[in-house]
Amino acid sequence: MHRTITTLSDGRELAYYDDHPGAVRDALDVRGLPSTHTVSELRHDPLLNEWVVVASHRQGRTHLPPADQCPLCPTRGANLTEIPSPDYDVAVFENRFPSLTPGLEPPAADPAVPGVERLPGNGRCEVVCFTSEHGGSFAGLPRHRVRTVVDAWADRTRELSALPGVEQVFCFENRGEAIGVTLHHPHGQIYAYPFVTPRSARMLEVAADHERRTGRNLFADVLAREQAAEARVITSTEHWTAFVPAAARWPVEVHLFPHRQVADLPGLTAAERDDFAGLYLDVLGRFDRLYQAPLPYIASWHQAPVREGRDLSYLHLQLCSIQRSPGKLKYLAGSESGMGVFINDVAPESAAAQLRAL
Amino acid sequence: MHRTITTLSDGRELAYYDDHPGAVRDALDVRGLPSTHTVSELRHDPLLNEWVVVASHRQGRTHLPPADQCPLCPTRGANLTEIPSPDYDVAVFENRFPSLTPGLEPPAADPAVPGVERLPGNGRCEVVCFTSEHGGSFAGLPRHRVRTVVDAWADRTRELSALPGVEQVFCFENRGEAIGVTLHHPHGQIYAYPFVTPRSARMLEVAADHERRTGRNLFADVLAREQAAEARVITSTEHWTAFVPAAARWPVEVHLFPHRQVADLPGLTAAERDDFAGLYLDVLGRFDRLYQAPLPYIASWHQAPVREGRDLSYLHLQLCSIQRSPGKLKYLAGSESGMGVFINDVAPESAAAQLRAL
Repeated sequence: MHRTITTLSDGRELAYYDDHPGAVRDALDVRGLPSTHTVSELRHDPLLNEWVVVASHRQGRTHLPPADQCPLCPTRGANLTEIPSPDYDVAVFENRFPSLTPGLEPPAADPAVPGVERLPGNGRCEVVCFTSEHGGSFAGLPRHRVRTVVDAWADRTRELSALPGVEQVFCFENRGEAIGVTLHHPHGQIYAYPFVTPRSARMLEVAADHERRTGRNLFADVLAREQAAEARVITSTEHWTAFVPAAARWPVEVHLFPHRQVADLPGLTAAERDDFAGLYLDVLGRFDRLYQAPLPYIASWHQAPVREGRDLSYLHLQLCSIQRSPGKLKYLAGSESGMGVFINDVAPESAAAQLRAL
Repeated sequence: MHRTITTLSDGRELAYYDDHPGAVRDALDVRGLPSTHTVSELRHDPLLNEWVVVASHRQGRTHLPPADQCPLCPTRGANLTEIPSPDYDVAVFENRFPSLTPGLEPPAADPAVPGVERLPGNGRCEVVCFTSEHGGSFAGLPRHRVRTVVDAWADRTRELSALPGVEQVFCFENRGEAIGVTLHHPHGQIYAYPFVTPRSARMLEVAADHERRTGRNLFADVLAREQAAEARVITSTEHWTAFVPAAARWPVEVHLFPHRQVADLPGLTAAERDDFAGLYLDVLGRFDRLYQAPLPYIASWHQAPVREGRDLSYLHLQLCSIQRSPGKLKYLAGSESGMGVFINDVAPESAAAQLRAL
């Protein structure tokens, strides 16, 4: 991985991550973009004791532009994009419409916003372009490019973890219009949150309790159980296993666990990164063959928070899809959204058998 | 409220709730339906220490049938529906494709399903038809009908709470295809769960902590704060207040709180029920005027569990919509689904001002 850091015309950072040394990434952003004003704050929900991000400047953001106006393509001809270079391997830049942004002042006391605990929405939101090919997909990347993406994720995690106030870095990909994706170009995102996220906090609580009771790591035990059970394993390699969790919430859900307890992406060895690339391409290929169509999915990297619970955490990738059959989606309606109870219509063992057979 | 209990041809229960006394509901279900076989189990998710419902027989259920085959209409002419009577006010029946069902045996040890803690999916799922008019909506009900619906919800809550193993009763309405609704006829559902749901468990934990620290009820404090703040109140009546929560997660989110701490729907007085009917119709009317179109929403009644935390609980109705502008939906993607962090693009005070002005 070979990194070049540069700056866009409105001051946002852009980092190129190239597969090979020697790429020259010195093209200038000639758009002369005005800087944007980000209004983002955290609000405390007293009923669940959780923070919610309110980012009310984002309603006007870019929505499914035509391919010749794609802002994630390299800059060629008349299409002056977010990436000034005429070519790139992997490019990461700060989102122009971020939900979280660095250096905000605490929200001023405002008589129009009474009766709520507020904090500035400090953090950072980045966009990760996986390839310069507009019509591609993650599943179609060559293996060495996946390795570059993993290196970029790891590097961004390290960089963003060092920013003041950042407590957790979340690398993810939303894929497909059914997930609400507003740009077709293959890309993911990175959110650097100023708090430990509710799901991670919950997992750490459960893992701490498990360790107190058993002396063992919760995630390692779950992996060992799935490896022993075999029934839900899709595929495995020397360093990774992909399985459908025993209590899958989504009609298609696959977890990718490394065989060694690692807190976060920067902790992976070169061998583990290479090995992951092969396994992930294998799983994503099965996803697209499942219904003979590109499967919409959410890919979520669960990493240790920056400061807490690092000894309990266990890096893993969670893949979820709401596509329950070729023409039908699973909706998160009353039971899921109101009560937090997921109803899965697909037995995890059947889902695993289907994916294994593809 | 005037109740008649009867049975469908496959043995499922059907209850009529009529606005006035004297309605004769003795029509027989002549369809001769074969009984269905429900396969439902709970699976323990070790990472979050939560139960997930796996109901793998439900994939074939009815999906957006044409109006003349609607199974929720009264039985007239050739359309033999779930409701044998040629007319009804409110009708409640057991779902033919339930996620949870009573009297299941514990799942047998099965070598094909290794390495997971399983329990039978005992419980009950009911469908609540709000009106016999196929093209209607909850917002269009007359006020006295809303009162009948509230009485039916309360009666069902009491009945289902008495079933063996039921720990929480959840009355809700999913409205609109964007929420995944598969039948257009105005209806809601009731789930009787064999455990306290994750969201309720979390709220009770937070409420218990709040009471320890302050000696006061969390929900009463939240309501008092919103009443004092005023900025997010939509409308209020003698017994109820409707407000946008200070840390709303959804672009449209409104909570309806009674002014008195009541554990569940059966605890509401007649005056509180009548008063709710007026307030709810007012709020739902604003919803449909917001974008000059029927607003998709999820309406979730938060009731006390059957046995635990009843002294801490505070009945309230949570209304949420994913419609963030006339043509745009909010998706629960990476941040929400992966990390549990909601990003709201709409400031709660603006949402409240908009709804208040309508």
